Order: sequence, then structure tokens, then C-alpha cells
Amino acid sequence: MSKLGIGVIGVGTLGRRHAENLRRAIPAAQLIAVADADGGRAKQVASELEIQHHFDNVEDLLEREDIQAVVVATPSRFHASVTRLAAVAGKHVFCEKPPALLMEEAESAMSAVAKAGVQFQIGFMRRYDPPYTRAKKLIEAGEIGEPILFKSIGRDRQPPPRSFFQGGINGTLFLDAAIHEFDLARWLMNDEVAEVHSFGGVRACPELAEFGDVDSAVVNMRFGRGGIGNVECLRKSNYGYDIRTEVVGSRGALEIGYLRQTAQLVLTSAGASYDTVDHWLVRFADAYLNELGYFVDAVLKEKPMQVDGQEGLRALAVCLAAERSHRESRPVALESSARLEGNTKNAAGLEIAR
Amino acid sequence: MSKLGIGVIGVGTLGRRHAENLRRAIPAAQLIAVADADGGRAKQVASELEIQHHFDNVEDLLEREDIQAVVVATPSRFHASVTRLAAVAGKHVFCEKPPALLMEEAESAMSAVAKAGVQFQIGFMRRYDPPYTRAKKLIEAGEIGEPILFKSIGRDRQPPPRSFFQGGINGTLFLDAAIHEFDLARWLMNDEVAEVHSFGGVRACPELAEFGDVDSAVVNMRFGRGGIGNVECLRKSNYGYDIRTEVVGSRGALEIGYLRQTAQLVLTSAGASYDTVDHWLVRFADAYLNELGYFVDAVLKEKPMQVDGQEGLRALAVCLAAERSHRESRPVALESSARLEGNTKNAAGLEIAR
Amino acid sequence: MSKLGIGVIGVGTLGRRHAENLRRAIPAAQLIAVADADGGRAKQVASELEIQHHFDNVEDLLEREDIQAVVVATPSRFHASVTRLAAVAGKHVFCEKPPALLMEEAESAMSAVAKAGVQFQIGFMRRYDPPYTRAKKLIEAGEIGEPILFKSIGRDRQPPPRSFFQGGINGTLFLDAAIHEFDLARWLMNDEVAEVHSFGGVRACPELAEFGDVDSAVVNMRFGRGGIGNVECLRKSNYGYDIRTEVVGSRGALEIGYLRQTAQLVLTSAGASYDTVDHWLVRFADAYLNELGYFVDAVLKEKPMQVDGQEGLRALAVCLAAERSHRESRPVALESSARLEGNTKNAAGLEIAR
Amino acid sequence: MSKLGIGVIGVGTLGRRHAENLRRAIPAAQLIAVADADGGRAKQVASELEIQHHFDNVEDLLEREDIQAVVVATPSRFHASVTRLAAVAGKHVFCEKPPALLMEEAESAMSAVAKAGVQFQIGFMRRYDPPYTRAKKLIEAGEIGEPILFKSIGRDRQPPPRSFFQGGINGTLFLDAAIHEFDLARWLMNDEVAEVHSFGGVRACPELAEFGDVDSAVVNMRFGRGGIGNVECLRKSNYGYDIRTEVVGSRGALEIGYLRQTAQLVLTSAGASYDTVDHWLVRFADAYLNELGYFVDAVLKEKPMQVDGQEGLRALAVCLAAERSHRESRPVALESSARLEGNTKNAAGLEIAR
Repeated sequence: MSKLGIGVIGVGTLGRRHAENLRRAIPAAQLIAVADADGGRAKQVASELEIQHHFDNVEDLLEREDIQAVVVATPSRFHASVTRLAAVAGKHVFCEKPPALLMEEAESAMSAVAKAGVQFQIGFMRRYDPPYTRAKKLIEAGEIGEPILFKSIGRDRQPPPRSFFQGGINGTLFLDAAIHEFDLARWLMNDEVAEVHSFGGVRACPELAEFGDVDSAVVNMRFGRGGIGNVECLRKSNYGYDIRTEVVGSRGALEIGYLRQTAQLVLTSAGASYDTVDHWLVRFADAYLNELGYFVDAVLKEKPMQVDGQEGLRALAVCLAAERSHRESRPVALESSARLEGNTKNAAGLEIAR
Repeated sequence: MSKLGIGVIGVGTLGRRHAENLRRAIPAAQLIAVADADGGRAKQVASELEIQHHFDNVEDLLEREDIQAVVVATPSRFHASVTRLAAVAGKHVFCEKPPALLMEEAESAMSAVAKAGVQFQIGFMRRYDPPYTRAKKLIEAGEIGEPILFKSIGRDRQPPPRSFFQGGINGTLFLDAAIHEFDLARWLMNDEVAEVHSFGGVRACPELAEFGDVDSAVVNMRFGRGGIGNVECLRKSNYGYDIRTEVVGSRGALEIGYLRQTAQLVLTSAGASYDTVDHWLVRFADAYLNELGYFVDAVLKEKPMQVDGQEGLRALAVCLAAERSHRESRPVALESSARLEGNTKNAAGLEIAR
Repeated sequence: MSKLGIGVIGVGTLGRRHAENLRRAIPAAQLIAVADADGGRAKQVASELEIQHHFDNVEDLLEREDIQAVVVATPSRFHASVTRLAAVAGKHVFCEKPPALLMEEAESAMSAVAKAGVQFQIGFMRRYDPPYTRAKKLIEAGEIGEPILFKSIGRDRQPPPRSFFQGGINGTLFLDAAIHEFDLARWLMNDEVAEVHSFGGVRACPELAEFGDVDSAVVNMRFGRGGIGNVECLRKSNYGYDIRTEVVGSRGALEIGYLRQTAQLVLTSAGASYDTVDHWLVRFADAYLNELGYFVDAVLKEKPMQVDGQEGLRALAVCLAAERSHRESRPVALESSARLEGNTKNAAGLEIAR
Repeated sequence: MSKLGIGVIGVGTLGRRHAENLRRAIPAAQLIAVADADGGRAKQVASELEIQHHFDNVEDLLEREDIQAVVVATPSRFHASVTRLAAVAGKHVFCEKPPALLMEEAESAMSAVAKAGVQFQIGFMRRYDPPYTRAKKLIEAGEIGEPILFKSIGRDRQPPPRSFFQGGINGTLFLDAAIHEFDLARWLMNDEVAEVHSFGGVRACPELAEFGDVDSAVVNMRFGRGGIGNVECLRKSNYGYDIRTEVVGSRGALEIGYLRQTAQLVLTSAGASYDTVDHWLVRFADAYLNELGYFVDAVLKEKPMQVDGQEGLRALAVCLAAERSHRESRPVALESSARLEGNTKNAAGLEIAR
């Protein structure tokens, strides 16, 4: 079986990691080229990873015939348009979350994907994280009975730099961060979110108010089959990168996540202490590798994607509803999951939160 | 200093524990009598605790002049009326939560307390639990900066028996259980709850639907100074009694609670396992003792109560708002904390959630 | 059933706790009197515990006919002689460990106990600690298969005061501290210690060298049926009171013990931290209560003691062998367990480690 | 800087992992060839790793001029002879532990290394494990004061297959397994082991008796500066791969190691449970990568090795002394560390445990 030729578009922190994984750790892939609007960065990454080709634009990369698939890791507001371009060029697409900042954009990109007949995976890496993967299996095996309650927190140690928020190019907290929790909610509860209610706060990072963003949010959820839940996101915990999820079922419960980074306890007269996870690239190193490994394998073997465009669209719908709830100070219902389930995969007509 | 003569009214599970603590573990108290509508139960407890007097009604106990204070541990719907009677009889009152099932009842009882000039403590025992007490101290010492996010879960292993729910004598989940979380929220955030939003569920104990109750709830909270939070309650975790609270501040965070009961890890080819806390009398044994110890000491030394009627009224107000939010499917604002703070201690005019 | 009249001899830290437990928490006992060479201390304890009688000598206490049993909590070098006096006076005896500082003394005391036909319990409180009790049950139920490896550490936060070591009145580390570990070893392995080898150190508390004592020791053990193990004791951990035991069996293992005192995690930019157990009265509060509760119940109901004089003698034999190993720089074999098992309960002829 | 050409000799479980790391994860290395007495295995590994050259003997590999360094991962009894051959051929050597099964062999190999002027690293991968590395740094920074007590356990879930023990080709438990603990002891205590005493057992795997081996051992240690310690090894814990180390210092302590593999807690009516580490390739994945990364970097940059032949010789000396102690039922003193420290790096005259 020949290798899958891949290009990586956008080589910031995460795109660079994807490129590195493709170059070093996924034998079935062949990293052909990287592109970045910052041509110097593209060049440096190519040099470090010992590959030949680098570009300062998307189009040149997409023209290469030895590239059959791309990884889209640009700023979020370009996700949809780059996905569309890549699909039109006949490339399979692995796209970072969120699929877009607006529902219409996401739907349009998914339409292009469907029309081109290429494969698409959205970057919900937690679905490939061993603790979460094992949780899903245990739930499916009935270990905790029927899931009835979902809780998840996502706390960053420090907020991204100011530039991250300028121009809204990455979406607010609800889109940029909470989307991971909402995807977990749908996946682990095996249900759709029917209604949400959010409160947001700006007491940790008051400077975010000027961007119309919040630094923290709690989002109540009601699921289609009657389960309930809550998601919390926080931009600045100050103590560590803290991702923890609980699913309570009718017969038991699962807790996923950990806090201690180094397997070491320091004991002094001040008590016991340990260090905490400090970065998402550390916490989810395996997950980032596994998700791309699956993508490459699925394209080569023409297997269906596990986390496809529909998964991206539905999580995005929850994000937008949660954001609207916060803005309008009221609960927001999502369209009936029945209808959602009736939709075809690229569901052009998907409407939510109206 | 002579001992404080005390009677215990209601000797079910918790009332019996209070009586035992007063008899055995609080030297400054002298347990004089117990009363219970079930006279046989009162007699048996008196016998086991080696005290002389037992009654099958409140009035006879209140008539004893050697009793200066009472512990009210009846079913919740009698809390307010028994408190009123005791106050009129000139007895200091320690009353289990909730102070009443309706705001008006609670206010009326507090008025009687104020008029009689007796002392009153509400049974929020967590405020006397060492981990929570230490948390409060650390917060006051500025250890985590300004509190900005409050999270708390309260999960019972199994729901109370069917009789507990009949006739609504103990209030719904929001009053009976969530009141502890709301009190913690106000206390640890050092702020008032300004608005709440609830979702409730009945998937763990569907039989509760017939009583108009829920088995689970998630309650979003917005605090007066801009903090946010969420409280979760569940009647049936099936795995243990699980009470955990987190307070995140601008500089750090605190987690309170534990799951493992016996300090023992069992390691077999199936992995590692340990047992879990199975009862609130175990988890909060120290707290139940400490709260009564404080009450006795405060009455004897004429010190102010730390958890007085106002604390009970305000937590009750949050409960009622959370319940209303669930029933009416909308966020419910509480009266401004400014006004609450302007009220006198027995605040006859306190109105909330209308 | 009438109550058991008890006197407590020696009301230092631990004796005082025993007295308090008897007075407040063990309804079947009636604390009649306390005695202490420091008559003022005896008087103060009597006053605080609201009992009438206190003495500055053993004899007067033993003369009281309303006292049927005594608790011996004097300095260790008096344990044997006070036990003998009490037995001769016809009192049942609960004696703190070690039973004596010399084998001959211990045997002589046990002979007196046997001759008087009174009951005797040695204060190995860990046998009544819930985690250890549950471990024993799991082992007996075959949960871990056949026990093959025993590990235990006992670390004090700080050494006792200088006065504790003067005159050797409490024995060295091997007798005073390691005896708990050796008793656990015998009990949990359900086997006798056949041979020991010790290394001792004085690097934590160099001042102990002048008393011929060590501050730390590691003791290798070989058991009668082929199991092996190691015990570690340390006078000064500086970080907390740390007692942890492991038993590995052919099918699994048990770990007993804990480090965190308050159920609270503090999270700051420096990482996660928690406090540690700081005192044996905290760690073993339940155990101290339970062991006396058993003693009182067993005397009243004429049940056999679970931790009798033989248990004390055998653990003492291991202590003395471990100490000899350290002094003579060689492994020391104990007498065959076969012979030990052939002995009668008060085994006057018990000889070890010569 | 050009890449370091490397060959891997022996591609069993661990050799294969080394080859994979060199091929995929260490950019500065170029894996040229693999060799294995089982030529088919060498061929398959070469194919999977997409490299051209594979051999069924050492000599052919050593002849290649594009190979500047080798990794020796043969059965232990060949370590010394292959090291010698490689050194004579002018190759730098990374050799798995133990350096040899006999002191003389190890010394002879180290002499050949010294004479050839090549670099040598011994595979004590724990020195490159992040928790252990951080522990060493904290100790050097004085965080726990002066180290006074060392404890370490190394438990395998299941013993190696029967073939592992046949012919003694890998040494007994003391050499094959305990060597890691002894190396940690020397490194973390920053001291030499002066005397050891061992007990061994065969109750977990009675079949090992026929090979003259034990399945478990406890080894008391006395260090040159007065510290003491104990090491425990077990071939069959049945519950997981359990490696934990403690260093107690005059001001505090460190605990290194962990038990839970997946960051997940399963809660059911039976209690709480989690899975355990099941394989050393999982626990020490980073360490295996880091140690080779250092080796490659050190050779290319002509930096001194951190874990050189002397470290291997000294740990081996402790192993042999511990084994002798077990066989001869007596404590065994090692040669004075003063003399050891006076030796040159390849210390031909090193004698121990006689």
C-alpha cells in the first residue's frame, strides 16, 4: 500500500505538531509540504522536519498532485473556506475545530465536501484520547447503565495572547473552547442536546470584555431523552490545564481526566505537593497522534470517518445556542434531534437556535 | 459554668445522632429529654442514651424548665412551626435545614425567634466540616485571590424511601438537598446569588415524577459581583455518597471532598479498587458534632450564632428560585442582594423569586 | 448488664485519651479513677472528665473494689510491673505496648496474669483500625491469595522530646515504634517471623546516638512459611505522620494507609498541594476507641481477648531480635514458630533471639 | 551536522523499541541496520521500519563503515562480549543493563571500551524518566535536605517466560531486575552502597527454584555516609507493573511512581476502580526515548556520557553482593567507596563482595 501524501495548512503551535506527527510517527503518511501565510514559518518548519516543499499560500499547496489530503490548522475563521478550496481541489480534509464560526459557512463547506466526494474529519482529538476512548467503550458495554448526567470542565492555565481575540478570528469562548465539551456531551451521552442555558463571566480576564468575549461560562444542558448536564469553561485557572469529565449513569459513573503531570509527590513540612498539567499538547499528545493516524488509515482504506462533518455541525450548533443564551439571557432550544437525525450527512438545511 | 439543658425534638436518623452527640460528646450540654411523634421511638432512644425523659409530643418537652434549648429534627414541613413554638416557650433553637418549605413560614418563624429574643442556628453542618472550614479560611486569607467560579455536586447513593416523598413533607430536591450547595455557594463566594437557571431530570428514579419531584438537577448561578457557578444534585448515584465542591479564584482554586472511605487499595488482576463513602453520617460525623458544639457554646457564652436565621432564609430563597426556574423553564432573578443586606436580622419583609 | 468499673494508670497524652474514651464514648464502661505519678495531672484530668477519684500512685487505685479493670499507660519500663500488680490485685488489664522492655519481664507479667486468671489485652490499636481490620478480612477471604510479601513503614513527623529517650524508659526505636509493624506483620501474614536483619541510622536525629538509640531502621524479615518482607521506621519525617502497609499475595495486593489529612486540594500557580496527617491521635482515633470498646465488651461478656499476652510476647521477641541484629551486625533467627505455637497462652518458657 | 549512523543488535521486545525510536523519533540518528541471531526477526523488523539492512550476526553489522554506534540489546549474557566486539570495531556503544553477568566480564568490556576510545552508555533508562529526573534535580536543589533513607520497589505483573530463565542467560532477579533499583539508590542518594543484606523468596513462582532463582527479594542497604534503605523486587505482582521509589531527606521526602494507567475512574455499586500500568514499555516509553536521544546527541557532540561504564560496574557490584548475601545468608560488605572513587573510569581492578 503506498503512503498517503499530505500537506499541512497553517503551522502554528498545533499545525506544527500535526506536521511533526505526520513526518515522524505515522508511517503510512508522507508529509509532502507545509503552507503558512507566514512564509518564513513554513520554511522553518519544512527545514526542521526535513521536507522539501513549503508555501506561503494555500493554492500552491493544493496544486500539488502528490498531495491527496490536507490538514487545516489555520485560524478558525479560515477553516470553512480552506476546507471548501481543498474539497474543490479533490483533497481529503482533516480540519481543526470549529468547522466554522457561523452555521451557514460550516454547512457550505460540508456541501462542498459532499459534492467533491472527499473524506472529512473534524479535529475533536478527545475522541482519540485513551481515557475518553475507554470511557466510551465502557458506556457502550453498559458498565454504568443508561447515561443520565453529563458534567465537563475545561480550564486553561492562561488565556491565549491578546492577538488571539482580536478581530474575532477564532470565535468566542463558546466556539473556541466549549465546542470540545459539547462534542463529548453528544458522544458520551449518545444523545443530542435539546436546550441550553448559559451564564458567562469576565472576572478572570476583564480585558476580554472589550472583545465581546467572556473568560468563563457555565452551560446547563437538557438532552433529547431527558438527561441533563453542565459544562464549564474557564480561560485562566492559573494553576494548570484542567480537563475533567463525568458521566453518571443509572448504575454507576465514570470520571475522566487527571491533574498531576509528573508522577512525583514532594513532601515537606508545608505538606504534600505535586505539579499540574501545563499544556494541552502534553495532555493530549496521544490523542493528537491517534486522530491523525485514524484519518490517514481511513483515507487509505476508504473507511468511513468516525468524527465527520455532521459531528462538527452539531457541536457547532450547540456552541452557537450556548452563546446566544448568554447574549440574550434566556434558555435556547435547539432544533429537534429527530429532524437532525433525519438529515443527510451534509445537511444543507440544518438550522439551529432560532 | 453550669451545663446547657437540651431537648431533642424528632429522633429519626439525624435527630438520634444529635441526641447521641449531646449525651456523649459535648460535655457542656446536658441532654434532658427527647420527643418524637412516635413515642415508642422516643422511649427507646431515651433508654439507649440512658436519659430519663421522653415524650410523644412537642408541648410536654417545651414545658420543662430545665430545658433551655432544643434541637429541631422533625420532618421538614414542621421545622417552622416547632421553631415558633419553641421560641414562644423561650427556648433557644437549633433547627435542621430547611428552615421551612415556604418563604413566609420561614420568615414567620424567624420573627417569633426575634421577638422572643432567643438564639437560633440552622443546621448547615458543612460549615463546621474541617475541609470546608479550612477552605473558608484559605479564601479569607487570599490564598486563591478573588473567588470567581463556584461548583458543587451533591450525590446520594440511594434515594430516601418512598415515604420521604409522600405528602411533600420534606420539600423537593431543590429544598431538601440543594440547599446545602446554595449555602456553600453564598458562604464560600462571600456573595449573594443574583440569578439562577435550573434543569431537572427524572431518569434515575422515574417514580419521583408522581410526587412532582426530580431526581437530579443542574442549577446555573450568577452572583451579585459577577461570579458564576453551577450546582448539581442527584438522588441516586448508585456508587456512593459523593459531595465535592470547587471554588476557583483569580489566583488559584480549592477542591473540597473525597470519595474513598477506607484507607485501603485492593489490587488484583482486575485493577485497583477502593470503597466509597456510603453515608452522610459517616462523611459529616465531625461536622454534626462541631455544629452542635458551637451552638451549645454560643448559647452558654451568649456569643452570636455564625449560621443564623438570615443564612437560612437566604439559602431558602435560592432553593425556591431554583425550583421555580425548573417549573417555569426560565431563569429566575433573586431580589437584589443590596436590599437583602439592608434588612435586619429577622427581616420580616424578605421577598424573593417573584 | 452492669457497667465495667475501670481505672486508668498513667494519663499522659495517650492515657488521657483512653480515659476520655472510657468516660464519654464507651457506654458499657464506667471510668472510676485515674492515677498518675504526677498527682496534679491526675487531678486535672479527673476534673476535666468530671470524675471523682484521682491518685498519685498505683496502689491506691488498685485497692478500689469498684474497679474491675485497669488501663496501663505509664512509661514503657513500668508496663510489666504495673501489669503484675494489677493482676495480683485481681484486675483485668489493658496494657499499652510494649508489654515490657525485656523478654523475662514480659513473661513474668504474663505468668502473673495467667495465675490470677484475669484477662489481658495489649494495645496494638492498629488491629482495630478500620482499614487494617478490613485488610485482615479480605486476606482471610482469599482476596489476594496466599500472602507472600509484607511491607510496612512507620514515620513520625518529629521525634518525641529528649526526656522520652533519657534513661531508656521507653525502649529504643525497635521496641517503641517498630513493635507495631512487627505485630502487623505476624497478623496480616498469618505467620511467625523466623529471621530478621536490621540496619539502623542516626542521620535524622544525631543527638539520639548518645542514648544508644537510632532514628531510623530497615528490618528485613523471613517468615516461617517462606514469605519475606521489610519494615521501616523513622523518628523524623518532617512532613507528617506516615503509616503505610502493603501485603502482596499470590493473586493480588493490599495497600493500607493515607497521607492527606484534610479532604482538600489547594491549587495555585505553584501546583497542587494538600496537608498531611500530623498526629497519631488523629490517624488512629477510631482504633484507640475500638480497641478499648472491645476490651470492655470482652471482659463483661467473658469473651476471649483477640490481642492477648501471647501476641505481645511474640511481637516483643521480634523487636528484640531486630535490635540485636542491628547491634551485632548479623541476621538473627527467632526460635522456631512450631515451638512457639506449642506453647500455652502464658508460655513462661518462651525464649527468643539468644 | 550529519546524522549518527546506528545499528541495533538484538531486536527482541526492547531492541525493537530502540530501533523504532532511532528510526522515527530521533532525527539526529539514522538507523542503518539491525541484527539478530534470529535472522527472520531481523528481516521483519527491517521491513517494518523501512530500512534496507538486516543481519543474522553481529560481525556483518559491525563491518559497515556507515555505522558509527551500536545499541546492544541481546540476552544479558552476551552484553559484555558484544560490547567488546563493537568497541574493538571502533563503534560507540549503548548497552542494555546489566553490563555483564560477572564482574570480570564487565571490567574486561569496559577496558576494551577505554582502549578503543569509544563512548559507552549503559541502559539505566530510569535516569531519563521525567519523574526520576525531576526528583534528582529537587534533591540537588536541597528541597528535601540531605538524603537519609532510600526505598524502592520494582514489581512485574507476570514473570518472563520460562525460556528467559533457562541457562541463566539473563542473570537472576538480583542482576536482571534489582540492578535498576540499585542504580537509583546510588544516584538519588548520591552515595555508594557499603553493605547489603538480602532475603529471597520463591512463593510466587515456585518453578523458579529449579533455576536457582528467586521470585522476590528484599535487600537492606547501608550507604557510605550512614544512610540506610531497602529495595524490593517481585517477579509476579499479578496486578500490574508497579515501580515506586521514595527518598527521605532531613527536611522532606519525594515519592516517585504511579499505578493508574488510564486517567479514568469507574464508579459502581462495588466501589471505585481503575486500571493499572501493565507494561514497562508503557511506563518508561519517554525514558527509553530520552536515553537514546541523549546517547546520540552526546556522541555527535562529543559530550561525556552521564551513565557510563563506571555506573554500570558499580550497580553490578551491588547486585552481586546482594545475590551473595542471599546465597550465603549473611550481610555482605562492598569495597570502600573511597577506593572505588579513586579508580579510573574503566577500573580494571575493581573488586567487590569477596
